[in-house]
Formats: sequence, C-alpha cells, structure tokens
Amino acid sequence: MTTHSLLILPGDGIGPEVMTEVRKVIDWFQTNKGIQFDVSEDLVGGAAYDKHGVPLADETMAKAQEVDAVLLGAVGGPAYDNLDFSVKPERGLLRLRKEMDLFANLRPAQCFDALADFSSLKREIVAGLDILIVRELTSGVYFGEPRGIHSDDNNPQNEGGRVGINTQRYTSGEIRRVARAAFELAKKRGNRVCSMEKANVMESGILWREEVQWVHDNEYPEVELSHMYADNGAMQLVRRPNQFDVIVTDNLFGDILSDAAAMLTGSLGMLPSASLGAPMANGRPKAMYEPVHGSAPDIAGQGKANPIACILSFAMALRYSYDLGAEADLLEAAVEKVLADGVRTGDLMGPEGGTPVTTSQMGDKIVEAL
Amino acid sequence: MTTHSLLILPGDGIGPEVMTEVRKVIDWFQTNKGIQFDVSEDLVGGAAYDKHGVPLADETMAKAQEVDAVLLGAVGGPAYDNLDFSVKPERGLLRLRKEMDLFANLRPAQCFDALADFSSLKREIVAGLDILIVRELTSGVYFGEPRGIHSDDNNPQNEGGRVGINTQRYTSGEIRRVARAAFELAKKRGNRVCSMEKANVMESGILWREEVQWVHDNEYPEVELSHMYADNGAMQLVRRPNQFDVIVTDNLFGDILSDAAAMLTGSLGMLPSASLGAPMANGRPKAMYEPVHGSAPDIAGQGKANPIACILSFAMALRYSYDLGAEADLLEAAVEKVLADGVRTGDLMGPEGGTPVTTSQMGDKIVEAL
Ligand SMILES: CC(C)[C@H](C(=O)O)[C@@H](O)C(=O)O
Ligand SMILES: CC(C)[C@H](C(=O)O)[C@@H](O)C(=O)O
Repeated sequence: MTTHSLLILPGDGIGPEVMTEVRKVIDWFQTNKGIQFDVSEDLVGGAAYDKHGVPLADETMAKAQEVDAVLLGAVGGPAYDNLDFSVKPERGLLRLRKEMDLFANLRPAQCFDALADFSSLKREIVAGLDILIVRELTSGVYFGEPRGIHSDDNNPQNEGGRVGINTQRYTSGEIRRVARAAFELAKKRGNRVCSMEKANVMESGILWREEVQWVHDNEYPEVELSHMYADNGAMQLVRRPNQFDVIVTDNLFGDILSDAAAMLTGSLGMLPSASLGAPMANGRPKAMYEPVHGSAPDIAGQGKANPIACILSFAMALRYSYDLGAEADLLEAAVEKVLADGVRTGDLMGPEGGTPVTTSQMGDKIVEAL
Repeated sequence: MTTHSLLILPGDGIGPEVMTEVRKVIDWFQTNKGIQFDVSEDLVGGAAYDKHGVPLADETMAKAQEVDAVLLGAVGGPAYDNLDFSVKPERGLLRLRKEMDLFANLRPAQCFDALADFSSLKREIVAGLDILIVRELTSGVYFGEPRGIHSDDNNPQNEGGRVGINTQRYTSGEIRRVARAAFELAKKRGNRVCSMEKANVMESGILWREEVQWVHDNEYPEVELSHMYADNGAMQLVRRPNQFDVIVTDNLFGDILSDAAAMLTGSLGMLPSASLGAPMANGRPKAMYEPVHGSAPDIAGQGKANPIACILSFAMALRYSYDLGAEADLLEAAVEKVLADGVRTGDLMGPEGGTPVTTSQMGDKIVEAL
C-alpha cells in the first residue's frame, strides 16, 4: 500500500490553528478511506527563528526535499518586523520556494456561489468567476543580484546618502518552463492564456513576451495566447475578470495581481495555492501548498480564522501530489456544501447573515459533510 | 497681463481627438474670462516617430522645458508595436518625465456620483470615493541601469540562451522628495498617507519604508502615516478603497495600483493626472498633465473617445500651474453638471442609459455648461 508523505509547516499567526483543522480532514481520509498519510511536522518563519535563530533550519529544508508534498500555513507577524532582512520569517518561505525550485505558483481565483454577494464587486461581475493565475516563483526581482542597501555618501545630490537596489533578472529558460506549465493547465480548462508584463518599459518584459510567444508558436499553437501590459491587467481584473482563463506572469506582478484577483471573490480566507516544480522520481511534481492568506496576527489565537483556504490547499495536494483526484473532488464538494448551508466564519459573515462558527467548528462541519 | 504658456502634445490614437475638445475649453476661458493662453502644439510618440524617426524631437523637449505646463494626450498604438525599444512611442513620454524631472505623479481616483452605478464594484463601496495616488515617476525600475537583453549562450542550463535584466534603484533623496509631495498633499486633504512597497522581499522597499518614515518623523509628524505591502495594497484597494486618503508608492507599483484604483470608479475615461517637478522661477512646479487612459487605438478616429479625462487634466493645470483655482473649480463643476444631466460617451453608457454623445458633442456640452 502506498504511503503518502506530507510535511506540515504551520508557521506563524493563524497558521497553526488552520492546520489543526486540516489534520481532522487527514484523519478522516485515513480512517474512512484507508489512505495512508505519513505526516511529519516542523517549524518555519518566526516560529523557526524563535527556536533556531533562522526562519528555516537546514534539517527542515532537507525534509522538504524528500517528501511528496509540503503544506505550509503562513509566516510572519509584528513580533518579527524588526528582524534583520536575512532572518525575516519570509526568507524561510522564499528559501523553500527557491531550493525546491517551485517555479510555477498556481493561484485559482474562484467565486463560490454561496459567497458571491460577499464580494465588493457586483454579483453579476464575479458570479461563476474561475480564473487561474500562474505566477513564476523562483526568479525575478525576488532573487536577482546585485541587491541591497548601500551608502551613497560621496553623492552630494543624494539627500540621505543611501541607495537601495534590486535586480529583475529572467532567463529565457525560466520563462519557457513557467509558460509551458500555464499552457498545459490551460489545455485542461478554457484553452486560453493571457501573459502579462511591462514590455513597453522593461527589457525583461520584452524577453518575457517573446519567450512565451515562442513556446506558444512551437509547442502549443492550439492554445489561444494574448499579451497584456500588467497595469492594464490590473484594470481588466477589476473591470471584467471573467474575460480571463489562465494568466501567466512574473514573480512580482504575480504577487500583486493574484492578491487583487483573490479579493475579487471577496473571500481571501477561501483561496488555496499550489507551488509546483520539476517531476520527482514518482512522476509527480515537487510541491508545496499554502493558503493565499497571510498569518493574520490580528486574529491569531482567537478561533476566528477561516481554515477553508488551508483545507482547499490540501485538496490541491490530493490532486497534484497524490493523484487522488476523486478524493480532492469529495473534499471540495464538502466545503461547498457547508458554505451552501450558511456556515460562516467571521470573515465570511456578510449582511445576509449565516450560522457563525469558530475555526474548529468549521473544520468539524467540513468533516461531517465528507 | 500674464500670459499662460501651454505646450500641447496630442500624441497618438484618441489623443488628437480629445485635445480638440480641450481647445474649445481654452477658447472659452480666453473669450469669456479674458485669460490669455499662449498655446503651442507639437508631436510626441508614434506621431513624432513618423515625422522625425524618434518619439520626441530635441526641439520639442526644449520647448517643454520652457513652458508653464505641458498637456499630453496619449502615446502608442499597434502600428508602432514592432519598433525597436529605443524609439517606441513610450520612450517619448518617459523622456519628458525624466528630463523635466517630474518626480511626483498625482493620480486621483474619484467616483463621480452620477457614475457610481457604472463601476463593477457595488455602489456603497465606491460612492464618494476620493483617493489620491502619488506615484514616483523619474526613477525605479523604469530607469535603472544596467538593463537590456543579453546573450547567455555559454550557460547550458538556460534553454533559449538569453537573459533579460532591469534594475530597481532608488536613492534616499528620490524617496524623500516624493514623500514630501505626498505629505504636503495630505495636509490639504484627509491628513493621512499610506506608503506601499515590498519591504518584506526587496531591500529597495526597506529603504523606501525607512525614508518615508524619516520624512514623516522629522518634517510631518502631524500627518498620519501607515505602511502596507503592495500586494496587500492591491487587495485593500479592491476590498475597501475608501480606507485610503493619499497613497505614496514607487514608479512600478504606482503604475499598477493607480490603474486598479482608476478602474474602481468604473470610468477610466474620466481620470486626469498631473506630473509635477521642482519649482520654476515663477514659483510653480514644472508640470505635465495627461489623462490616465491610453491611446485606445480600437476607437481612435471614430468620435467615440471621452474627452473628460483630458479636460479634467487641463483643470489640474489651471489649479497647479496657473494658480487659477476658481477657474479649475468652474470647469470641474461644468463636467459634473453634464454628467448629472445624463450626457454620456459610449464608455460611460451603462444599463441605466443616458443621452449618447460623440467626443465633439461632449466637449460642446461642457463648454455650454461653463
Ligand atoms: C510573504 C511574502 C514573502 C509572499 C510573497 O511576496 O511572495 C506573499 O505575499 C505571497 O504572495 O506568497
Ligand atoms: C505608457 C506607459 C509607458 C506608462 C507607464 O508605464 O508609466 C503608462 O502606463 C502610464 O501609467 O502612464
């Protein structure tokens, strides 16, 4: 019998709370479906810093490289705001992405029908919304060298005497591989890809556009490809988001645009993500799953967090890392049912009301619905 | 009697059409208010390229340096898409911004009551919306060196063999001066500034945050300052935009976030902008005004363009460059009246209907309302 290995990294803030609810789901699948999960748990972010003085210990990094999938909660919080840049909680997350080479970050923005009225956008604009942002996750300005803050004292023009530098750097190969991921995903959906950059002002954007076009013309001519400047993309996401199927974009634009897209659905506490790398020996991609939301320090430890984003991230793991598509469907259906029944954590409580529940009760309801 | 010099650069696409309507407004002020404008006109963007082989001739650049204000329509279009990067229409615009040193780009996102139902956001979210984005406009990744596309042939890991590079570079002095502009503007409005960057992943963002904080603590302690990561900023703009008063951010984030903010109001054809530099001999800032919208090649030459954004840009010129605040108020009131009367260009035509007008008729209606 196959064992499915999973490394859980709850992290900071609401991370541990939402992860407790995922544990209930995992237990349910073990007990009721006889699926064997080999679950280990470790520290990341501020929690790792508190224990090890670094936001990700080398042993944890090594474990992450070995398992079938990593499930991460969230990192960061005000307690760590004044830490040196090199040991900030976020560096733990970035190290995982980089060393596992998780180049394709999949961020679905889906509007759940039961929640359509909860968006700040009109129901008719967001109802049925189902777009997928594929964000490059291992390169660009997040990782480019040179970088840093330097003294610029001998420049009398520069009041303050400092200069801050980051480098946006993309190779053609990095662009091609994430483009392929986007085209493959589009083939299983609406067959359309929109690539976003600022080719009108950045040469790295020109390269981006040319390489995405190259992959299209040579390997995926049957998929519909369009290009859009990222500023216009931000605008179109707000104006008429359902014009999109798959969006592919770089690390920084992907960060901003996917957060805007997530908010369209009105329910950030709902949205999962998958970060995928190259295939491992078992044929499945190296993978880490995380909710799109952050560590939400303002509500941490109060039983207010919505565990659905993390539970749906586990559903993505079922689908992409364990080849358990039917089980993923089952879990997603359970979430939909609970929402349709009006069960609501605080973040989902709109004017139309509902049954208020805590983090833990939401987890229980979803398990009941399974 | 003072003469107010103005250089008009209609540019490409709908630029010339909307500028024709501004001319009517200028004529009205000359005839009815005895205000003397010394208007000259020249080429920029694709139009300049067609004549001179460059998107901005040196003579035009020199003229722009001399006048009280520049009013620009829009640049770019499909005819110029395959031009070399160095002569793209956008380079004309960027040259003006850089050489005039227009470091503070003011982009108001205001929701006109008559148009609140036209937004893709719910009326209660956008009604009364009045935020001002101050975007740094002369530095950052738009201008940083090194930049370019290089061969990376000796890297066997790099399929495609190329690399694209841009540099995000900010000096402390550049950050401080735009921060000051934002604090000054906030004092005349809601007294609140929110600064946006990605200090959690970029050192240039750390410098940004520190320098904005420094200006606040040393010079504007009475203004309320907050900091937000730009991805969260994008999210909050969609979720609850009226939480903001003045937003200050860098060139690239400002490009994306201001377009998203503009779209909240549902009426991109409505939004003006001002790009301001250091004070000239007359005490007024060096300045260029432009509508936020682009050249809209798909509707160019069809009488469909909405001239209001360009007319309101001229209103900003009246206020900031000519010290004619009362006249600016008058012009803005005329625009509001015409909208309240239900006069609508195609871009403003929602389900609730209205009186459809052409570009030229809209200009006439506004002049009538003056
Ligand atoms: C926490 C932070 C480093 C991260 C990012 O910027 O990538 C987050 O915003 C995200 O989108 O996953
Ligand atoms: C046309 C383009 C160069 C420009 C920019 O990116 O700054 C535009 O998008 C804007 O916002 O004014």
